[in-house]
Amino acid sequence: MNIDINSDMGEGFGPYVIADDAALMAHVTSANVACGYHAGDPLIMDRTIRLARDHGVDLGAHVSFPDRMGFGRRKIDMPMAEIEAHVLYQLGALEGLARRAGHRITHMNPHGALGNLASSDPATAEAVASATMAFDPSLAFLVLPGSALERAVKDRGGRVVRLFLADRGYLSNGQLAPRGQPGAVIHDVGAVIARVLRVLRDARIETLDGPDIAMPVQSVLIHSDTAGALTLAQQLKAALIAEGISPTPISRHI
Amino acid sequence: MNIDINSDMGEGFGPYVIADDAALMAHVTSANVACGYHAGDPLIMDRTIRLARDHGVDLGAHVSFPDRMGFGRRKIDMPMAEIEAHVLYQLGALEGLARRAGHRITHMNPHGALGNLASSDPATAEAVASATMAFDPSLAFLVLPGSALERAVKDRGGRVVRLFLADRGYLSNGQLAPRGQPGAVIHDVGAVIARVLRVLRDARIETLDGPDIAMPVQSVLIHSDTAGALTLAQQLKAALIAEGISPTPISRHI
Amino acid sequence: MNIDINSDMGEGFGPYVIADDAALMAHVTSANVACGYHAGDPLIMDRTIRLARDHGVDLGAHVSFPDRMGFGRRKIDMPMAEIEAHVLYQLGALEGLARRAGHRITHMNPHGALGNLASSDPATAEAVASATMAFDPSLAFLVLPGSALERAVKDRGGRVVRLFLADRGYLSNGQLAPRGQPGAVIHDVGAVIARVLRVLRDARIETLDGPDIAMPVQSVLIHSDTAGALTLAQQLKAALIAEGISPTPISRHI
Amino acid sequence: MNIDINSDMGEGFGPYVIADDAALMAHVTSANVACGYHAGDPLIMDRTIRLARDHGVDLGAHVSFPDRMGFGRRKIDMPMAEIEAHVLYQLGALEGLARRAGHRITHMNPHGALGNLASSDPATAEAVASATMAFDPSLAFLVLPGSALERAVKDRGGRVVRLFLADRGYLSNGQLAPRGQPGAVIHDVGAVIARVLRVLRDARIETLDGPDIAMPVQSVLIHSDTAGALTLAQQLKAALIAEGISPTPISRHI
Repeated sequence: MNIDINSDMGEGFGPYVIADDAALMAHVTSANVACGYHAGDPLIMDRTIRLARDHGVDLGAHVSFPDRMGFGRRKIDMPMAEIEAHVLYQLGALEGLARRAGHRITHMNPHGALGNLASSDPATAEAVASATMAFDPSLAFLVLPGSALERAVKDRGGRVVRLFLADRGYLSNGQLAPRGQPGAVIHDVGAVIARVLRVLRDARIETLDGPDIAMPVQSVLIHSDTAGALTLAQQLKAALIAEGISPTPISRHI
Repeated sequence: MNIDINSDMGEGFGPYVIADDAALMAHVTSANVACGYHAGDPLIMDRTIRLARDHGVDLGAHVSFPDRMGFGRRKIDMPMAEIEAHVLYQLGALEGLARRAGHRITHMNPHGALGNLASSDPATAEAVASATMAFDPSLAFLVLPGSALERAVKDRGGRVVRLFLADRGYLSNGQLAPRGQPGAVIHDVGAVIARVLRVLRDARIETLDGPDIAMPVQSVLIHSDTAGALTLAQQLKAALIAEGISPTPISRHI
Repeated sequence: MNIDINSDMGEGFGPYVIADDAALMAHVTSANVACGYHAGDPLIMDRTIRLARDHGVDLGAHVSFPDRMGFGRRKIDMPMAEIEAHVLYQLGALEGLARRAGHRITHMNPHGALGNLASSDPATAEAVASATMAFDPSLAFLVLPGSALERAVKDRGGRVVRLFLADRGYLSNGQLAPRGQPGAVIHDVGAVIARVLRVLRDARIETLDGPDIAMPVQSVLIHSDTAGALTLAQQLKAALIAEGISPTPISRHI
Repeated sequence: MNIDINSDMGEGFGPYVIADDAALMAHVTSANVACGYHAGDPLIMDRTIRLARDHGVDLGAHVSFPDRMGFGRRKIDMPMAEIEAHVLYQLGALEGLARRAGHRITHMNPHGALGNLASSDPATAEAVASATMAFDPSLAFLVLPGSALERAVKDRGGRVVRLFLADRGYLSNGQLAPRGQPGAVIHDVGAVIARVLRVLRDARIETLDGPDIAMPVQSVLIHSDTAGALTLAQQLKAALIAEGISPTPISRHI
């Protein structure tokens, strides 16, 4: 039995640091690296790719709308052809740096507002899926179970890895509870770890507004930029190993 | 006997148009495409790549310092490691879009201030050469004969294609005459074509300040953004064919 | 009887030219100058301000979402506090350059997607109006008659100048017909001029889908970036003068 | 007897935080606020201006080359006319936000590579001085004693406030010792405070390579982005008051 521990990485910019990637990298099995659109720059991308390579961590492209000031968290109205072109530009840019470092891209995950749209809007999901698969049909997509992106990738015969947001409350319709709602964000490390273990055991999770829902996932997300990310990652990894579950990069899942 | 006709392309941005790439593409055999640093954006890159593909034109990466307002024409002091990372980012970004279009990168050429530095400064030349060859050792470099970039590429066992700037006056030291000096820019189409034919016949060219110099080149540059570029390209191509010289993309040179 | 002839100006960027501002400036009485968000840069702003000053043309701030690639034409979701801050930043930046040139800002006009939102969404209209009036309560707002921005400015005791888009078809609800609908864009110079004269005479205009509507305006917009802008401006100015109507900058309207 | 305690502020960007401006603001008497070129954005500028206003802290414009990735620390070759336009754009942008907040700009200080050039290169100094004085001739310039900027401002009849970098070692030629040289950066809080007190008492400071030099200054710089900035500011303020020296904003110096 195994699971991927995933985190967003390389989200600094120029002089700015947002997380201790070097420390966290030792405790995850896959990383989504910012590609210079919402965060990151070529030097930070290079450094993060090398960290991932040195730790045997899978490398993903964390693609976004072009919006540094908003950290990619706000929607920009644009045609699907432009979203596709931005996805390809970012995938390629990451590939450019990965090649020299001797590492390779295994997966992708749209960030922020682009990620939300790809989860809920079939046209955006299709744009992200088709551009990515034209770049490399073997890349896995980190998706929320039941999302538009999961459907778009499966319809094209692509590979999805379903993601569990261990520190977020779910609703009975399968969506994340909006931040601000009580229970939407879980801060207690022990509670977060217990949720992961339950999901791995039962493939189900409780909801804030109704009965348990199915949660058949292969990856758990750690937010790198929250206080306690490092502690959570360390304790989660230890708890998984104690339960006989092996933290395993996406590319080595069966 | 053959020669490559080369031009810089895809140098618009968003709403801005700077040259009629669609028309010019029919008359060149290789194109250097801006990668979103001095000019271009993912949509324009995509369009330009497809134009090149449809015309059987070789695709090159026209990499630059990150400077849209200055069109990449001014030096930005930065460490060599950052230049390398910017080169890889741009090569990869172009590759990302080229893959989907079913075209491939055959060559590269640094633009503007980065190109000038790579011609004159061995450290910059080494940064550009090493980053590019780490990305793809089979890419050709469009270089000025005798430049630092030519030496750096050859030292690494890479491939150079020497470029003749047909509308620019040369000095007896092999350098281009600075713009502003009389004879530095040649506007007469007939004169430009005569210079190309002479270079192809003799592998030599006259200089503004002394005896003829060797000019052993495999490619002629047409500036896409000058008035008359289209006329020059058409007439040059016709003149070459009339002389039994075949305009041939870089990748098909022997 | 007088009217303002208004045009958007300074919409180039770095090496890019989008309109012949120097020629057009002689035929308008007010200009809205791009502030470096959708277009323009400090050098172009400086040049455009000086052109306006030299021609006795009123200077306006053409504020936008920060989006060069999309030319400010697409909505970016952002909080109202951020819109306010962007408006103040742009107004101030234009003021910085205007002061040295010895010119002064007389009006403002939100561009593109921000303009559309300010016309239709009361919250955005309020953000634009309140930020601008905090900067300078004497600035006039160029508005579409009946727009949310007109109401927001009037509610605050500010000054509006109503704008007629002479080359655009109107609907009976007072809105512009969407581009693409037959009659949405009027290309014939004579027809455009006739529409201006009718509006000045009757304060009414025909619609594409019903009866005439009131069109009580003080300014006519010439799109600077369309072919024929210069011809239209010249002929319109001549036609107005022939009818005894004086083209007059906003600041000299009674 | 009084002295200004000055610090660079507002150097975050979008999601990025680089210093605890809210805490530090209580211990300084003037702030140089980033204007969106090397750091800062309209929302951060607004917040920093309000903090300064609420603490009775003088507001300065910290103008820079346009270079977020390099934090304004690297030279960009550009004509003097462009430097002037960038200075005016930034001064105006800050003024736009300051007006609404009911605060006003009292001084300016060029940042990073632009600051270094303005200290050493008379042409750059002249560009910065002339643009700023065209914007507002009453603004003070924070300068290094003996710098080209000091001379340019004085030649134009402008006002300078001389700055002491309390945590940096000086050379006997009046220049700062280059970082990397032993003694170039002083980390001990007590030593830094002792240096300030000596400069205030004697108007002289020791050098790393020779005799003491004159150091007639009216302002002391605290680097906001170094660890211990807050402690240093608190202790320095207390030490000054204990010596009967009043920390006083630039605008209230006699």
